[in-house]
Amino acid sequence: MRGLPSGGPPHLYDLVKAYPARDSKGLRAALCIASCRAFGGSTAQALNSAVALELFHNGFLVHDDLQDGSLFRRGESTLHTRYGNAIAVNVGNATHLQALRTLMDNGEILGPRTTWLVMEEAERMLRHTLEGQAIELGWIFDNACELRDRDYLQMCLKKTCWYSFIHPMRVGAIVATGARLDSERLCRFGWYLGAAFQIQDDLLNLEGHFQAYGKEIDGDLVEGKRTLMLIHLLQKCSRREKAQLRTMLGAASARRSATNVARLRRLLKKYDSLDYARRCGRQLAGAAFVEGLAALRDVPDGADKAFILGTVAFVVGRDR
Amino acid sequence: MRGLPSGGPPHLYDLVKAYPARDSKGLRAALCIASCRAFGGSTAQALNSAVALELFHNGFLVHDDLQDGSLFRRGESTLHTRYGNAIAVNVGNATHLQALRTLMDNGEILGPRTTWLVMEEAERMLRHTLEGQAIELGWIFDNACELRDRDYLQMCLKKTCWYSFIHPMRVGAIVATGARLDSERLCRFGWYLGAAFQIQDDLLNLEGHFQAYGKEIDGDLVEGKRTLMLIHLLQKCSRREKAQLRTMLGAASARRSATNVARLRRLLKKYDSLDYARRCGRQLAGAAFVEGLAALRDVPDGADKAFILGTVAFVVGRDR
Repeated sequence: MRGLPSGGPPHLYDLVKAYPARDSKGLRAALCIASCRAFGGSTAQALNSAVALELFHNGFLVHDDLQDGSLFRRGESTLHTRYGNAIAVNVGNATHLQALRTLMDNGEILGPRTTWLVMEEAERMLRHTLEGQAIELGWIFDNACELRDRDYLQMCLKKTCWYSFIHPMRVGAIVATGARLDSERLCRFGWYLGAAFQIQDDLLNLEGHFQAYGKEIDGDLVEGKRTLMLIHLLQKCSRREKAQLRTMLGAASARRSATNVARLRRLLKKYDSLDYARRCGRQLAGAAFVEGLAALRDVPDGADKAFILGTVAFVVGRDR
Repeated sequence: MRGLPSGGPPHLYDLVKAYPARDSKGLRAALCIASCRAFGGSTAQALNSAVALELFHNGFLVHDDLQDGSLFRRGESTLHTRYGNAIAVNVGNATHLQALRTLMDNGEILGPRTTWLVMEEAERMLRHTLEGQAIELGWIFDNACELRDRDYLQMCLKKTCWYSFIHPMRVGAIVATGARLDSERLCRFGWYLGAAFQIQDDLLNLEGHFQAYGKEIDGDLVEGKRTLMLIHLLQKCSRREKAQLRTMLGAASARRSATNVARLRRLLKKYDSLDYARRCGRQLAGAAFVEGLAALRDVPDGADKAFILGTVAFVVGRDR
């Protein structure tokens, strides 16, 4: 719980700690530290940035859960269902502020120049993430039904890949070398990897077990999220089915009944949309591995490089 | 609309511009620029910080309106009622990110050291504001009914005074002089001034005219906000009335019916709670003026000093 403030008024820092205290993967922090070490740096150099990453992530989760109307996170009820939307918005903001504070504290170990480079990277990451979130929320708001796979991948790049994969590795390399990183291959590695990760997440939302996954199953369907499988279904179904889908998806999520969710599931099965998404995820993971090998060609073999490349197998094999 | 991004996905930067495009006072930006000039700086030195202040303020408003369930802002419907909670959270976040970006762009005109000082001030301001917001939301969540005037003033210091008055003046002085400001009197001036401002805001919420005020009248009563007048009423009313009030205020805001709001209003009138708050506001304004004169004693007379001191008369006289 390093880097988390204490004291202050009730229902603030105690709740900032709530999500981080639940069992989680810590994937982004681990990637950042492994990347720093792989590029010749030490754990200590990456520590603040890794902590900040997990804080940004947890702040996003608090806001996301409210935005998606999710009921469960990491096996327990979401913050906004327990404390209401007002407190959840504030706690998400306080979590992000704590992330910023942690990055500002980098000065002592990294010096002002590298500290500033990491701040610039964080600002860029936040911009990508908010834009990705806007794209996804906009599709639901506008009831977009004419999307293509490349739209999904573009959204994914911004919403998921940048902050969960590209940014952690870039920051790891920056704090290790003190230089801005210009590795297009590392970005591409993170993009493919993140897309495979997101598709697996969307699959778990439909097929996972609550015990491991920790979120309610079918949440994406209730919310009308434009997942790769839904986009596939909208492309493949008959004109009549598409008209029905448009009406169902256009309804406010509260009115998206169990009957509608069951109908959506039947159609996804009829058109093998889950299998399609699974295949895409595996292809992306394969492409990620090739890009990863190339991006890390000059990095000496060792535990950190192995960990980074090992995330490829992890993201498609995971059940949580 | 300087400093506002364009392009990007729909329902993001277009909505970041929505509140700033509505008619507003621009009070915080004006105070920051006046303070910079009063302390010997130029408008150009304060411009980015002033823009950032208005952006932070507008980001808070977007989130506040959602948190308070408000219907109107600056005479038009609030963002979350038009676009839903999900998009409003994202737009508030993007507005804050844009504020941060604007502060990070200070480097060119202020140099790295002063830029960093202003970032530190902003981080501090955000912390006070989020803590103040947590205090106020916590009182509603916990149905606090045993509050004292000093609790209100403490909450006000953090929720309102710091970001609307103390921070703008401190930052103005910092960008002008390049030095961290240690003026306890300036802080006290901003505190008294901000408290008078907030009390006037709470009065306008009960007695104002929608046309000028731009927000729905009685919104605070519906929301159960612990205003100075409500705290006064809870201290003065009979034991039986207090028990009734506790039940009424404990009800979820949707259940706080028009009948209950009318009963609250009757009790506020019975115990002269509005007049009490009005008197407190005037006393605070008087104290602010005394502190302001002392804090700005070494500042040469002129338009900027006059503007800063003139805010005292403005905050208690305003109808919007």
